[in-house]
Amino acid sequence: MLKRSWTESANDAAGEFPLNNLPYGVFSTESLSPRCGVAIGEMILDVARLEKDGLTGTEDLLQNASWNKLMAAGPSVWSGLRQRLTDLLAEAASDRDVVEPLLVPMTDATLHMPLEVAEYTDFYAGKQHAQNVGTMFRGPENALPPNWLHIPIGYNGRASTVVVSGTDIRRPVGQTKAKDAEMPGFGPCKRLDIELEMGAIVGTPSTMGDPVTTTRAQEMIFGYVLLNDWSARDLQAWEYQPLGPFQAKAFATSISPWIVTRQALAPFAVDTPEREKELLPYLKADFPGNYDVTLSVEMNGHRISRTNMRELYYSAAQQLTHHASSGCAMRTGDLLGSGTISGPDPSSYGSLLEMTWGGENPLDLAGEPRTFIEDGDTLTLKGHAQGDGYRIGFGACTGTILPAPNFP
Amino acid sequence: MLKRSWTESANDAAGEFPLNNLPYGVFSTESLSPRCGVAIGEMILDVARLEKDGLTGTEDLLQNASWNKLMAAGPSVWSGLRQRLTDLLAEAASDRDVVEPLLVPMTDATLHMPLEVAEYTDFYAGKQHAQNVGTMFRGPENALPPNWLHIPIGYNGRASTVVVSGTDIRRPVGQTKAKDAEMPGFGPCKRLDIELEMGAIVGTPSTMGDPVTTTRAQEMIFGYVLLNDWSARDLQAWEYQPLGPFQAKAFATSISPWIVTRQALAPFAVDTPEREKELLPYLKADFPGNYDVTLSVEMNGHRISRTNMRELYYSAAQQLTHHASSGCAMRTGDLLGSGTISGPDPSSYGSLLEMTWGGENPLDLAGEPRTFIEDGDTLTLKGHAQGDGYRIGFGACTGTILPAPNFP
Repeated sequence: MLKRSWTESANDAAGEFPLNNLPYGVFSTESLSPRCGVAIGEMILDVARLEKDGLTGTEDLLQNASWNKLMAAGPSVWSGLRQRLTDLLAEAASDRDVVEPLLVPMTDATLHMPLEVAEYTDFYAGKQHAQNVGTMFRGPENALPPNWLHIPIGYNGRASTVVVSGTDIRRPVGQTKAKDAEMPGFGPCKRLDIELEMGAIVGTPSTMGDPVTTTRAQEMIFGYVLLNDWSARDLQAWEYQPLGPFQAKAFATSISPWIVTRQALAPFAVDTPEREKELLPYLKADFPGNYDVTLSVEMNGHRISRTNMRELYYSAAQQLTHHASSGCAMRTGDLLGSGTISGPDPSSYGSLLEMTWGGENPLDLAGEPRTFIEDGDTLTLKGHAQGDGYRIGFGACTGTILPAPNFP
Repeated sequence: MLKRSWTESANDAAGEFPLNNLPYGVFSTESLSPRCGVAIGEMILDVARLEKDGLTGTEDLLQNASWNKLMAAGPSVWSGLRQRLTDLLAEAASDRDVVEPLLVPMTDATLHMPLEVAEYTDFYAGKQHAQNVGTMFRGPENALPPNWLHIPIGYNGRASTVVVSGTDIRRPVGQTKAKDAEMPGFGPCKRLDIELEMGAIVGTPSTMGDPVTTTRAQEMIFGYVLLNDWSARDLQAWEYQPLGPFQAKAFATSISPWIVTRQALAPFAVDTPEREKELLPYLKADFPGNYDVTLSVEMNGHRISRTNMRELYYSAAQQLTHHASSGCAMRTGDLLGSGTISGPDPSSYGSLLEMTWGGENPLDLAGEPRTFIEDGDTLTLKGHAQGDGYRIGFGACTGTILPAPNFP
C-alpha cells in the first residue's frame, strides 16, 4: 500500500519515487556540489546536509559524492537510515519544517554516478537470451552451453567505463573480420547493440579465500540499478574466442541514476524459474531472490521491448555466491550485471541482436526499418515494480550514440 | 655500466638493486607505518620521509602507502624523481649525511602492495604458450586461434585478489566436470597451476572514448612487476566457454614487491619477435617495446623453468593500445598481465600445464615426480636484466599454497 508523504508529488500513483521507494543517488545544482540525495516524488532530499544537521542517525557516511561509505556500513545501518527517512517524510511527520528546506526540485538537479564502482562483472543469467544467442551462433541443438544450467556463467567487465544515465556514448572502433576476408579491418562498429540488464550492487565485502553462502550473499547486496551493457556485436564475433568478450563491451556500460535498495524491492520478491537440473548445494537458496520488476526498452521514444526481471534463471545472490566461490574477494561497490533479460517471445527480447534475429528481421520503428543502433539514436531502459497504488522506479537509463572518434 | 653508490651493498654485481635500478615499493617496520620506499642494495630508502624533508623535488606525492599519486603525475615528474634519487645516492653525493639516516635494512622491513590496482587485465601475448595450450586442447593444426596474430587477445581479470609476493594462497574450490560424468562436482581444485608473466603498470590515464597510439601508450606505462597468474585448470576447463576464464583465475594473482620503472629497463629494450602477419596500423610501433629480462620459476627451491620476457609477441604498449582502442578509459594503477611467457622448449615453458604437457609427463623434482601444485608447495618467480657489471631485479614473486577452505 502507498505510504503517504507530506511531499505531495510522492503520492502520485504513477510516479516512480513514493515514500515506499526512497532510492539513493548523487546530485548537484548550481549552488550545491555533488552529494548524496534521496528521491521523493519530484524532489531530491539533500541527505548530506540532513546528516550534518544530525537528523539521519548516521555519522559521516553521507558526506562523499557516492554512497559507498553507507554501503560498507552493512544491513543494520541501511535499515536504520531507511526507517529514519521514512519517519521524516511521512505524512504525519513532526520534523517537516526542518526537512522541507532541504528538498531540491529534480528539474534543478544534475545526476551523477551514485557509487564508485569497484569492479564490474557481467553475468549471463537470462536463459532465453543464452538460448537465442546460442541458436543464432551454434544452431538450436547446441544452443545452451553444457555448463549453463549448473553455473551462473559470468565474465569480468570494465569498471572504468560504467557511466550514469544521460552520458553520451561514442560509437566504438575496433577490429572486425568478414567471414571470407583474408585479413581483419579496423573501423567504427557496424553492429552496435544494447543489453537490457539489472545491476546488483555489493554493499558489504567478503574476504579473500572465504566463499559465502547464498544467505550471506543476499545480505551483502545493497540494491539494484537498471543497466545497459552496450555491445559491439561485430567486434565481439572476431575477438571473443578463446578468452571471452573484451573491447566489444569495454567502451561503455550505463546505469540508472537511482539505486533502489533491496529493502524497497522486498515486497516484490519472487522465486527464480523452476530448475531444469538440480543445482549443486552451494548455489541453492531457501528464499525468493528474484524480483517482479517490469522492464522496457525504448529507441528514440518508441517502445521496442517489454520484459520482466523475474525471467532471470539465477538470482543476484546466486551470482554473487558463485563469484566468491573460488575465494575471490568481493568488495563494496562491486557491480554485478545480470546478463540480458529476454522473455519468451520477440516482443520481450532484451537486445537488438535478438529482436532483429542477427539483423535479418528489421524492426518497424514508426515506419522506418531498423536493425542496429545508428549515430544520434537514443536508447532508454525503464523499469518499475507495481505495488498497490504505487510504483517503485529507478529513473530512466538512457544514452545517445555519438559518431566514432577519428583514430589518432 | 654500474653506477656506483655510497651504499656499499648496492655495488654488488650479483645484487638486484644497484643505483641503476631504484625500484619502487611499499614497506613498514616495527616503528614505521606502511610507506613508499626505494630499494638500494640491501637497504630501503624511506622516501616518504625524504619528501617531507624537501629532498625529492616532489610535493605530497609519496605520503600514501602506494605509488599511485606519483604514477598519476606523469613522465616528467617520474624522470625528475629518478634523477634526484640517483644524485642523492651516487658515490660522490654531497647529501649523504642527511640521506643515510633514512635507510632501513631490508631484513627489518615487511613489504606491502606497491600500488592500488585499479583494474587487472590479463593478456595472452606469448605465442609459444598460446600454441602449446591450443595444441593440447584443439590439436596442432588449430592450435593458434585465427585472431591471435592480429589482436593482442586479453580478458578482464579480478583486481581484488592481486596480492604482494609472500602472501599465502588458499587452494580454490569450484565446479569441475569429468568428461564422462552426467553432473559436475564441487570441491578443491586438483590441477592448480602457475603462469609466469610480466605485469605492466599504467601510470597516466586515458579518456573514455579516446583511443591512444602505441607511442602514447608507451609513455603511459610507469613500470613493470613479475606476475604469477595462479590458475585452476580443472575449474577453467569446465567454466570458460563461452565467456572466458572467471573463477579459475579470480582467487589470486601475485606480483613482485618492487616496481621496476620503464626508465630503469630502457637500456634493455629489444624488438618484439618478427611479425608472421602484418599488423593493422593502430598496433604498429616504431620503437622497441620488449625487454631482455631473464625469467625463472622455482618449485620448493628447485628451478623448473627459465625463459625471457623478449619471447612476448606483443609488447605492453601494444596491449595497452588495443585495450584503449574501443574507447575504454585506462586509469592510473591498471595492471596488464602479459600472458604466460614460454620459450621454444619444455625447459622454458611458463606453466606446469605446459611443462608436464597436461599432467602427462611429471617433472622430476629432486627425485620426486610432480605434475600440479600440492598443498604446502612454494612457487617462486625470479627475473633480472643483465647489464655490464650489474643486474636489475624485481625481488622474488613467491607464494605458498594453503589447503582449500571448508565450504560454509
